[in-house]
Amino acid sequence: MDFFFYPSSVAVFGSFKKGAIAYEILRNIVEGGFEGRIVPVNPKGGTVEVAGRTFEISERLDEAVDTAIVAIPAKFVPALIDEIGPLIKGAVVISAGFSEVGNNELERELVEKAKKHGVRIIGPNCAGIFGVHGRFFGSFEVRVRPGGLTLISQSGAFGGAALAMGNDEGIGFSAFVSYGNAADLNESDFLEYFADDPNTRAIALYIEGVKDGRRFLKALRYASSKKPVIILKAGKSASGAKAAASHTGSLAGSYEIYRAAFKQAGAIEVEEMEELFDAAKAFEMYTRAGRRVAVITNSGGPGVLATDGLERLGLEVAKLSEDTVQKLRSFLPPQCSVKNPIDLIADADYERYRRTIEVVCRDENVDSLLVICVPPIFLPSEEIARAIIEADCGKPVIVNFMAGELVRGGVKLLEMNGIKNFSTPERAARALHWLSLR
Amino acid sequence: MDFFFYPSSVAVFGSFKKGAIAYEILRNIVEGGFEGRIVPVNPKGGTVEVAGRTFEISERLDEAVDTAIVAIPAKFVPALIDEIGPLIKGAVVISAGFSEVGNNELERELVEKAKKHGVRIIGPNCAGIFGVHGRFFGSFEVRVRPGGLTLISQSGAFGGAALAMGNDEGIGFSAFVSYGNAADLNESDFLEYFADDPNTRAIALYIEGVKDGRRFLKALRYASSKKPVIILKAGKSASGAKAAASHTGSLAGSYEIYRAAFKQAGAIEVEEMEELFDAAKAFEMYTRAGRRVAVITNSGGPGVLATDGLERLGLEVAKLSEDTVQKLRSFLPPQCSVKNPIDLIADADYERYRRTIEVVCRDENVDSLLVICVPPIFLPSEEIARAIIEADCGKPVIVNFMAGELVRGGVKLLEMNGIKNFSTPERAARALHWLSLR
Repeated sequence: MDFFFYPSSVAVFGSFKKGAIAYEILRNIVEGGFEGRIVPVNPKGGTVEVAGRTFEISERLDEAVDTAIVAIPAKFVPALIDEIGPLIKGAVVISAGFSEVGNNELERELVEKAKKHGVRIIGPNCAGIFGVHGRFFGSFEVRVRPGGLTLISQSGAFGGAALAMGNDEGIGFSAFVSYGNAADLNESDFLEYFADDPNTRAIALYIEGVKDGRRFLKALRYASSKKPVIILKAGKSASGAKAAASHTGSLAGSYEIYRAAFKQAGAIEVEEMEELFDAAKAFEMYTRAGRRVAVITNSGGPGVLATDGLERLGLEVAKLSEDTVQKLRSFLPPQCSVKNPIDLIADADYERYRRTIEVVCRDENVDSLLVICVPPIFLPSEEIARAIIEADCGKPVIVNFMAGELVRGGVKLLEMNGIKNFSTPERAARALHWLSLR
Repeated sequence: MDFFFYPSSVAVFGSFKKGAIAYEILRNIVEGGFEGRIVPVNPKGGTVEVAGRTFEISERLDEAVDTAIVAIPAKFVPALIDEIGPLIKGAVVISAGFSEVGNNELERELVEKAKKHGVRIIGPNCAGIFGVHGRFFGSFEVRVRPGGLTLISQSGAFGGAALAMGNDEGIGFSAFVSYGNAADLNESDFLEYFADDPNTRAIALYIEGVKDGRRFLKALRYASSKKPVIILKAGKSASGAKAAASHTGSLAGSYEIYRAAFKQAGAIEVEEMEELFDAAKAFEMYTRAGRRVAVITNSGGPGVLATDGLERLGLEVAKLSEDTVQKLRSFLPPQCSVKNPIDLIADADYERYRRTIEVVCRDENVDSLLVICVPPIFLPSEEIARAIIEADCGKPVIVNFMAGELVRGGVKLLEMNGIKNFSTPERAARALHWLSLR
């Protein structure tokens, strides 16, 4: 499937009027910096201007390209695929109006034409795809930063919202697939492909239901053996399952069966959307972490909340070794608490944070660190961010800077150095929980 | 306690060098637009410039003021209170170095001097107070927008972080109290006071432990009878309780007892920091909501997640009346689902949202509405925001706009009209859960 996610050339079919789907996709591809050949196609011809570049619109495709992105009315799609089949390897069909509204025959015809030419299909009724490291933004959704997460979403709207929210959360992406009706390629194909994609460190999967449970279980087991697979299953409740059935046309099936399958395959199931972000952020940074956590904080209350969170999730507040306690005592002011949670108190600066992280990191009883900072007014959050970035520590460090506008500078600096921030002590604790499940 | 939260004059004691605590508090008071008399006091005298205004620094207080804010070294505080006692009604003691570090005698002395003059004390070892509707920002913490939430926090750092994060969440505040060591006034006093404060619609309370359980229960019951009281109790786990004891010096006590007390008093207990925000946002808008919810969405996936969230929390996905279904059918496109969750599909515009909200709102089987929007590229989120704002509906409406940067305009417009946004379907469902507990 490299021709989808790392294509060297692409054709886009549809209307290139400003605001039209095909125009928006073309804009994303051009603005995203795609370096391969880009061919807009519309029978009316003409030209289209995007980001200062003018493209001739071909009246028909007359050259071979890796991938076609199709956003024309549904009824014309099968004939188009039949026509351009010899020239393309894959087609992403954005167009809606297939099986999701009962047009099963049209969808069957689409698949048949694709098979005839050996063309693979993503969609129809989908939001498109991103291959971020190949700078290929083949979707109208908001562009994202390069990173390690591949998002595979049955729901286009969920996927699009998750990309935009992922940007806010500091997530970096390797790829995005909205696969819609999954007429040809489905979640199992993508799991298998991204399991072996070197740019993908973790996979996040949003599903309502799958068509072939046995195949899915096998693909999920394979992918989970290679890297963390985080799953958000929608349609868990009775009403939710009914709603899912009505909008995708697929039966969601018993949630209990899914749940057991996820567990058996070694996947990480999250309960809600926000947890998907937390797990994704954690796994973009680390592959796993042990259960014994040291909490380092400059304020008591948030340290207590983190501790509550860790214990609630079955993690341990690590018992520091005597050696660690003595070392901490040797340089920390007497008001500081050297028991875990370690309270560096409000005036903790770069040096106090950095040395504490380095000492605690070397404690054999500690698997991972949860570092909290509520910056006091007299200290820029960037200073503590630098201490965390520069500390010499090879164990997982999960960071919770809190206080909205007051920590934006520090959070940005952390992100530029590949360290993601968790906005509350409990979300930080949860990140360590996900890491402990691998 | 109006002299604390609606003072007509205030004196600030401490250093007025830029960056010093007293300077930052003075700056907040001036920049916050306090219209009463402001008297900076420091034995060295001189002047201080703040926000373009120059203040003479009095060498000593020689006029009566409502409240003194004290940020001088701990050891000098009791003598100061004894000196200015005849001139003030209350003192907010920011200074640390009292019982929290074992100086119980100094704290006892402070209380004794205050009692002698009939002066009430908030603190010591606290972050100060805000009386937002009197434009009195008597703390170094970040200023907030006026609104209906009073935040009472034992932890200053938690309080400060929550204010800043509350700004990000669109929360409006009526007051803030960080009460530190609670040498004189404590959580029970504040609960009783804000129960009767006309500007406070809901109270959020962060506590680790209370000193007088019986008094607290009584105050909590009284406050809860007047308005929602949301409680985040830290120190619930074994390690958390130990950590709390070590940093506040107060015993956290058995969590089970607290939990039972909260319930008995009719308070709303939340499990973590983020839930405190969700509950606060919900109660700033509405006093309560029934359990039967109608979900209106423009995209299937998020609708399913909302439905899952509602059922998990024990709420009901309302069964719409035949009349409602027929009315919706009469104007909605045939691809829309008129079963709950109601799916208006991706091209839903102002008219479709507004009419649907108004029809559903009139259904006797519906207690509240959860309105979701993932804006498609061709529709500004402001348009849907306007539909929600302008819809004629007297029932609680909880909104989930999602997609980060793509919805910022719409979210801002909603907030300007007093409607808070919940960033995921599950958080929106949880808001309705809190509302159903009253």
